[in-house]
Amino acid sequence: MDTLIQHLAMENEAGNEFYIKRDDLLPFSIGGNKVRIAEAFYEDMKAKHCDTMIIYGSRHSNLCRVLSDLCFSRGTKCVMICSHESGEEDAPTNNTHLIGWTGAQIVNCAKDEIAQTVEHVMNEIRACGGVPYYIYGDKYGKGNEGTAARAYAKAYREFLRQEQELGVNFDYIFCPSGTGSTQTGLICGHLLAGDHKCIMGVMISSRETERAYQVIEEGIRAYFEEHPSEKHALPADLAGEIHLLDAYRQEGYGKYDERVEACIRQQYLENGIPLDPIYTAKAFWGMTEYVRTAGIQNSRILFLHTGGTPLFFDYVTNSSEQQKKS
Amino acid sequence: MDTLIQHLAMENEAGNEFYIKRDDLLPFSIGGNKVRIAEAFYEDMKAKHCDTMIIYGSRHSNLCRVLSDLCFSRGTKCVMICSHESGEEDAPTNNTHLIGWTGAQIVNCAKDEIAQTVEHVMNEIRACGGVPYYIYGDKYGKGNEGTAARAYAKAYREFLRQEQELGVNFDYIFCPSGTGSTQTGLICGHLLAGDHKCIMGVMISSRETERAYQVIEEGIRAYFEEHPSEKHALPADLAGEIHLLDAYRQEGYGKYDERVEACIRQQYLENGIPLDPIYTAKAFWGMTEYVRTAGIQNSRILFLHTGGTPLFFDYVTNSSEQQKKS
Repeated sequence: MDTLIQHLAMENEAGNEFYIKRDDLLPFSIGGNKVRIAEAFYEDMKAKHCDTMIIYGSRHSNLCRVLSDLCFSRGTKCVMICSHESGEEDAPTNNTHLIGWTGAQIVNCAKDEIAQTVEHVMNEIRACGGVPYYIYGDKYGKGNEGTAARAYAKAYREFLRQEQELGVNFDYIFCPSGTGSTQTGLICGHLLAGDHKCIMGVMISSRETERAYQVIEEGIRAYFEEHPSEKHALPADLAGEIHLLDAYRQEGYGKYDERVEACIRQQYLENGIPLDPIYTAKAFWGMTEYVRTAGIQNSRILFLHTGGTPLFFDYVTNSSEQQKKS
Repeated sequence: MDTLIQHLAMENEAGNEFYIKRDDLLPFSIGGNKVRIAEAFYEDMKAKHCDTMIIYGSRHSNLCRVLSDLCFSRGTKCVMICSHESGEEDAPTNNTHLIGWTGAQIVNCAKDEIAQTVEHVMNEIRACGGVPYYIYGDKYGKGNEGTAARAYAKAYREFLRQEQELGVNFDYIFCPSGTGSTQTGLICGHLLAGDHKCIMGVMISSRETERAYQVIEEGIRAYFEEHPSEKHALPADLAGEIHLLDAYRQEGYGKYDERVEACIRQQYLENGIPLDPIYTAKAFWGMTEYVRTAGIQNSRILFLHTGGTPLFFDYVTNSSEQQKKS
């Protein structure tokens, strides 16, 4: 079933109309873009005849929450490699707890030991007769760039179908850009459709901008390598199709100020929509700032709600606790 | 847009098939049955030319969360009357925080002072030129029994349409039964459709069973009083249409044991679905117990997920905190 596209009640002095695609309501494991991406990884694992899923991420990761739940629900063993700065022990969040429920085996390692830890885990699985699948490819995280992109390249057809049903033609699609795989998929979908839309990624971390462009371009090329019959859709100027906004990431991943907090409250209050401070509210706020300062007018603008409801509730609890203490 | 009906992966030795209707994914204010019910109250308020919403409930109420958010989003003043046992000051929950965000005026009162508080608040609003609407009718909470029922009487048509689309004929619809208004609405819908379904309410509080039957019967009669052209659908034996299960409420409202907790984890893990211990998990567990002990076989059974995602996250946070401490 398609996720809802809703018109948003928003001030729009410049004649812009804002819409939101509610991928936060995808009906598995509290939803979010990672539901589509986890499905793509799982299908890829099966296609490669592997039987053990190895995931990598922080204890707060939406992707690790969904993947560990998906593996449990399908009876697939899941090992999570979890890196941390030495000495770091941040407070558990809703995602930490939910990952814990799945009983996924957690292997901790330092940030500079990821490759050797991946290798070690894979060798251990093989020694027990298993066939491991690492979501990011080889131990250096290379070789599987196209799989995550596939999810939103496929979802893009849903966007187009819904445009027809709604009788709206979106000029822009904005999404939070972290690892870049959602945006990469949307750009692939846009290229395949040959439409005029601008796919705008709002950077939410302090990843170097040039590197972020490069990762997305590599992802797009990897997708088309896997789909040679569609290669005609690759434009000569691929870089010109990638739009990243790096002015709204504030102090970096997980850091946000009162403007992001105001955006969370405003969207909950005016549209009944939960946004979280790490991804969706920061990107939503960035979108509105960009639309205003870039002078965009009379456009139809779609924001992809990429989920993170557990993070919204982390915020609801923590911000209220802090208020009580101060 | 219709909310999804999903087939559930469940053990079903007796040939039963379980489905769930995901009203937790209704796209406003974190969803739940109260979204449909709040809409019914709001429409009724407008139809009665009132301009100020007065709601009543605890600080943890799903209905108060949705109504206060709905009023904010539509620019309608909202006053919440909040009763408590004297000396009681339980910890705030996600719903408490979200209600706080709306800035709804909160009027606290003792449990035996509700009627006079409602009257006082209504008089104050009138004195300021407002036209108050109290969701439960007069100051004694009488006279508006049909409105909440209307929500699920109307939603029932959606259930029937989806049955056709899915090619499934449900024999049973189970739902949590607290105030009874969701079940009341479903029974009205069932009577109007003249179908064979059993609408089963799983009691989640220690409300007296006989009184609960009576409240539902009064609600059904109130609904049909408001819809005289449909009165032919009222059966001679109305009581025979009301099914309440009172064996699964454990120690009463908000109390639950490890069987309910196991149900929460199982449904999250096996189907990716969040259930909360106060309403949905208790009712879901009660449903499975009843189906087994009553010897129900070869039936298609639909569970109405009535939401409460904020309560699910209260549970995720608190159960993990407790585990850490013990």
